[in-house]
Formats: sequence, structure tokens, C-alpha cells
Amino acid sequence: MEDKLMLMIPGPTPVPEAALLALAKHPIGHRTNEFSNILADVTANLKWLHQTESDVLMLNVSGTGAVEAGIINFLSPGDRILVGSNGKFGERWAEVGQAYGLNVETITAEWGQPLDPAQFADKLQADTAKEIKAVIVTHSETSTGVLNDLETINRHVKEHGEALIIVDAVTSLGAFNLPVDAWGLDVVASGSQKGYMIPPGLGFVAVSAKAWEAYKTAKLPKYYLDLGKYKKSAAKNTTPFTPPVNLIVALHTTLGMMKEEGLESIFGRHERQKNATRAAIKGLNLPLFAADDCASPAITAVAPPNIEADKIRSLMKKRFDIALAGGQDHLKNKIFRIGHLGFVSDRDILSCIASLEVVLLELGYENFTPGAGVAAAAKVLNG
Amino acid sequence: MEDKLMLMIPGPTPVPEAALLALAKHPIGHRTNEFSNILADVTANLKWLHQTESDVLMLNVSGTGAVEAGIINFLSPGDRILVGSNGKFGERWAEVGQAYGLNVETITAEWGQPLDPAQFADKLQADTAKEIKAVIVTHSETSTGVLNDLETINRHVKEHGEALIIVDAVTSLGAFNLPVDAWGLDVVASGSQKGYMIPPGLGFVAVSAKAWEAYKTAKLPKYYLDLGKYKKSAAKNTTPFTPPVNLIVALHTTLGMMKEEGLESIFGRHERQKNATRAAIKGLNLPLFAADDCASPAITAVAPPNIEADKIRSLMKKRFDIALAGGQDHLKNKIFRIGHLGFVSDRDILSCIASLEVVLLELGYENFTPGAGVAAAAKVLNG
Repeated sequence: MEDKLMLMIPGPTPVPEAALLALAKHPIGHRTNEFSNILADVTANLKWLHQTESDVLMLNVSGTGAVEAGIINFLSPGDRILVGSNGKFGERWAEVGQAYGLNVETITAEWGQPLDPAQFADKLQADTAKEIKAVIVTHSETSTGVLNDLETINRHVKEHGEALIIVDAVTSLGAFNLPVDAWGLDVVASGSQKGYMIPPGLGFVAVSAKAWEAYKTAKLPKYYLDLGKYKKSAAKNTTPFTPPVNLIVALHTTLGMMKEEGLESIFGRHERQKNATRAAIKGLNLPLFAADDCASPAITAVAPPNIEADKIRSLMKKRFDIALAGGQDHLKNKIFRIGHLGFVSDRDILSCIASLEVVLLELGYENFTPGAGVAAAAKVLNG
Repeated sequence: MEDKLMLMIPGPTPVPEAALLALAKHPIGHRTNEFSNILADVTANLKWLHQTESDVLMLNVSGTGAVEAGIINFLSPGDRILVGSNGKFGERWAEVGQAYGLNVETITAEWGQPLDPAQFADKLQADTAKEIKAVIVTHSETSTGVLNDLETINRHVKEHGEALIIVDAVTSLGAFNLPVDAWGLDVVASGSQKGYMIPPGLGFVAVSAKAWEAYKTAKLPKYYLDLGKYKKSAAKNTTPFTPPVNLIVALHTTLGMMKEEGLESIFGRHERQKNATRAAIKGLNLPLFAADDCASPAITAVAPPNIEADKIRSLMKKRFDIALAGGQDHLKNKIFRIGHLGFVSDRDILSCIASLEVVLLELGYENFTPGAGVAAAAKVLNG
């Protein structure tokens, strides 16, 4: 059966029909009042979503491009930075720093384990010369389903006083409460194909006043990723370069939907679906890759024993047209990842778990009572 | 009347319904065989369109991002480059070079005039030490409707032997014959909302073997715009970062349409519509901003005497829902620009000229015989 694909991966995530139809509208000129009005609305709603009064800028890039912009606009060659690294994306931001000649120090944890805030505190407290210019943290590590304790790490950054806190919020923004101003986050980067409920193609960067101060003296070269150009244009409800008009029109639609639902409900939904998914996996007696106290609201990684993870994914796709994500790098075929991010309903969680039960049985895994996964999920969802 | 917008601007250009519907398809996972197959097809067709056996890489950026990638991947700080500058975009590439600490020398011409190839020849011949590492030329200068003589300039670059030729082909690729391999062009950058007939959001960079040699020693910092990463991924029919899936699916559709039409027909169509537009403007006794021998196949700029250009644009929009482009920078309100790029039919040219006649009369411009513009265009279109 064609056209029944159900995306349960951490991006691209499902897109509501209203947004798909908005995407299909013929593009309008980007230097028109009509488009400026859309940009003004979108920008206001982005600030609402980020819980900030400061700037939230929109770039025609992927999430990686957004995080890179969030790093290179505020630093100079040789600057010392701390990068938390406990998965594919933490590793990537260290690579970005190295590519630009920054003095990168990583604070690592095993993939599947959370970063230890105390290690950040140690480094930051020892830095009495205030040489550390930025701390980069991946909030929700998409590769492992670990949610790092950004709030505590950020508290240590604030005690340091000098360093900026730069956050990869690609799979946490719009899924988890991330009050940018209340926490004093300096740079928060994210991407459109996640909590925003539209296809990939847009990146977002929130920038604090303190970060703009650092921007003034930052010397890393940039042009297309120069956030100052975006800020200047945004003040006039326009963009420095041709923007992806159709994606922005679709975003206009989904941000409206999000505003109608409300932040509390959105975060509550992600929390509930995360808990339901985790309860189900436990009910199936499968090991969760991340512990309960550091579980991402967007992705649940499962490490099936004695079954190749990719066989499960492949059969889920073939039998039920449900796309699950695999493991990356050394976790290939060791874990599979269930995305429950963005436009995902409670029904989707039940469908996914019920289908997973069938697939496990077909693959000869019988270490569970049929129905136990669904029952455990249902209990949470009804709670 | 709603939803009757006709885009006659140089980007976004009109998008065929088949591509709009492809855009509205629910995204699929980008790490799937299904998507890899689409990428393989798209890449093959991009090479066909560029008339190259070398790489054509696809980035999630605007045209500016593509040109920037085409510059920074092949150069090191302090490298001497020549930049042709006779409009908004030529100026921009000089700015990019300066932002990255290159030693930028511009070869300028007045906006509306073409670059003089002899000036490139002089500089290149004088450079016996072979210090010039690259020559950057905007092929079709979108801001003025001038087509620079890339073929001759490139011949001088080839005589130099060392310098790379880097081309902004944003509004010439897919509109004008640009045989990348036959001419030996090293880097050719373009953007999706132009000849490709899809909305903005994708940039393209063709890279020659000689440019890849330069890449190996190039030291400007980059990560998201690092073309080596895209080349490595493309060899496996994948992308280094999450690609804009929906735009690529739409591109798959339009490249198929282009291939069916054939290069000769596509280029002939643009040439014919350019000539028809220019004949019409002459028939209306309005001054063309660029001369016949350097006229862009994509954009015709008109400098109306004694009438504000923006009044014409505004009335064209209000009365007939036809979007024309305005002048940029010091040409604001001095010129208007008619885009005839991409998915534009002969009928569109006639509609535009007929509507323009009405608008000119309404604005009190009577220095033409009513019907003369349409008659002149028709004569070319029927020729």
C-alpha cells in the first residue's frame, strides 16, 4: 500500500496537512509587503516559542548550519571553548570549533550517558583568568535520546560570568520547556524539521544581548552565516538573502497551530508520549538506552538484546510502513530510535508500539506478554 | 481577485503545478533507499543541465550561500583574487572575499554596462608571478539585466593557467548555454528559485577537477559550507546534513521536465522571450537599461523616463497582479525589471506587455501607439 508512511524518526517529523498545503502554494515575491507581514507574524511567534524578548533569526540552512552560525558569530580564532560531547552532535560541534581554529576542550560522557554538570563547574571555576569564551551544550542528544541537564550546566556558566552558553536545541525546542530569557541562554539553535512540524530547510538562532556584545568583537570570518545581517534585515521585516518562501509560509501555519495549543500543552504532550513510549519498552522487557532521569522528550533509543536493531527497523517499515531511526556510527545496528517529536498524537504512539509487538514476535523475540507494551503505554496515556 | 499572482521577477520564478504538488508530498526519511534513489536521479540530471562529468553538489542555502561556498572552499587567507563588479551581485562577491581576508581586486563597470574582458586580460597577463588564485564573474547580473562575456573572460583566465574561474550563474544556469566542461569552468554556482523552476531553498555548486586540487590546500575555515563533505556524501547518494527533502522531491520533478524539453529548446525559449520583451520595450519607446549585445536571457531592465519605475510596478501589481522587480540600491525607483526566467511561456510575455501598455497609458505615458508593444513582441514570438 502506497502513501501510508508514518514517520517515527527524530526528523523529518510528521507534517500536518495544513502545512503541506501551505507549502504547495505558489511562492510570492520575498520583497513584498505581503511577505513582510508573514515574516513579522512568524518572528513574533518564534519569540513566543523561545520565551524570549530578544532576537530569533531564521536562516536557510539545516540544524547544523544554525548551530554553526550560533558558534562562529560570537568567537575569534584561538578562543577557548568547552564543548559537551556525549553523542554524534556533541562531537560535531567540537569539529566545528576545530575547523575554525578555536581552542576546543571537550567534556565527554559515554554515548547514552548524560554530561556531568560538575565537570563543567570544575573547568569553569578553575578558569579565574576568564579565558573560556563559550560553553556549547547539546540539550537533547538526538543520536542517543539523552537529555543533558542544561539548566544546571548553565547555572555554572552564569557563575563564571564571562562565557556564553550556546545551546544545540535542535530536538528540544518545541518539545521541552526551554525558557530562553528566564534561564539567560545566550544562543539557542534549532531546525525546522523537528518540533516546528514542517519539512527540513530552515534553521533558527536565538541571540541574547550579551551574545550581541560578543558579536561586536568576534573575528571569525562569515558572510552567509553572519547573524548581524539577519538581525539588521529582521528589523525591517525582511531577509538579507532570498529566503525559502514556501517553507516560511508553512511555518506561519504551524506556529499558529502551536500557539493555539499553548506551550504547556505542547510540552505536556511530549512528556506524556515519552513516558508512554518508555513504559511500553519496559513492558516489552527491552533495554532503554538512556536512563529515566535523562530521557529526551523527543527520542527514545532502544538497545534490543540478541536481535539486530536494523532487522526490527526493516520489518517495521516493510510490514507497517513505520519509519524508525537507526543507530549512528558505532551504534549502527545496536540501537533503534523512536521519534516522538512534533506532530505526533497519542494514537501514533499506540500504533507504533502495537506494530513493534508484532514485529518482535515475527523476529522470534518472545520475552514479553503480547499486549504488554500497548497496555503499559495506554496506562500512561490515560493517566 | 485572489490567487492570480503572476511572477515576472528574477526569483522566485513561477513554479509548475507538478512541482507544487511534489512539494506538498509528505516528507520521507532522508536516510532511506527511496531518497537515495531520488538523489541519484537528481544528481545525474544536474550534471546533464551543467553539461559536466564532474561534480554538481547541492546545499541547503540560497544562491548567495552557494556562491560563497564556491569561493571559500578553494582559497586561503591573503590569496589574491579578481572580482568582476558591475552590479549588486558582483559587489557582493567582493564583500565575501573581504569578509574572509582575501586580497580582493575588483574590475568594475557602471551598473548597466558589461565588464570589459580586456581589463581581465591586462591584469592576468601582468601577473607573471601567478599570484592571482581566482577570478570571480557574475554571468548574468540580476540587478541590471546585463550578461557578462564569460566566455571571453574565461579564455583569458585559461591563458593565465593558474587562476580558477568561479562563476555566479544564479540567473544564467538553465537559461543560457553554459557548457561547464567544454568551457573549462572551475566553479559554477546557482540557486533553485531561478531556471530550476522550484521555490528558493537550494543552492548548487559545480566543481572541476582543478578546483578539487585547489581544495586540498585551501585554508579558509568552513564546516556547513565545506564542499568536500558534500562530495563524499554524494558518492554514496546521501547528504552530509539533513537536506530539504521536499524541495529536492520537487526538483526531481522539474529536472525531469527540463530533460524532456531539452537544453536547446530551453535556451531557445529564453532567447526568444528575451528578444520579444526587448522588442516590445523598444516598441513602447522606453529605454532598455542594458544594450542588446549584453542582454541577460533572464531579466530585462527598463529605465522609464519621467515616470517613477515603482509607480509602474505598483500599478502592474494592483491592476493585473503581475509582480515586476524594482531597482536595487541607487537604481531604486529608477528602473523596473521584467523576469523571463524558468517556467515562463510566450503567453506570459504577451500578457505582461499588454498589461504594461494599459498601465503606461493610465500613468499618462503616451509616447507609443497602443498595441505597438504587443505587436513587436508577437513578431518575435512568431518568428
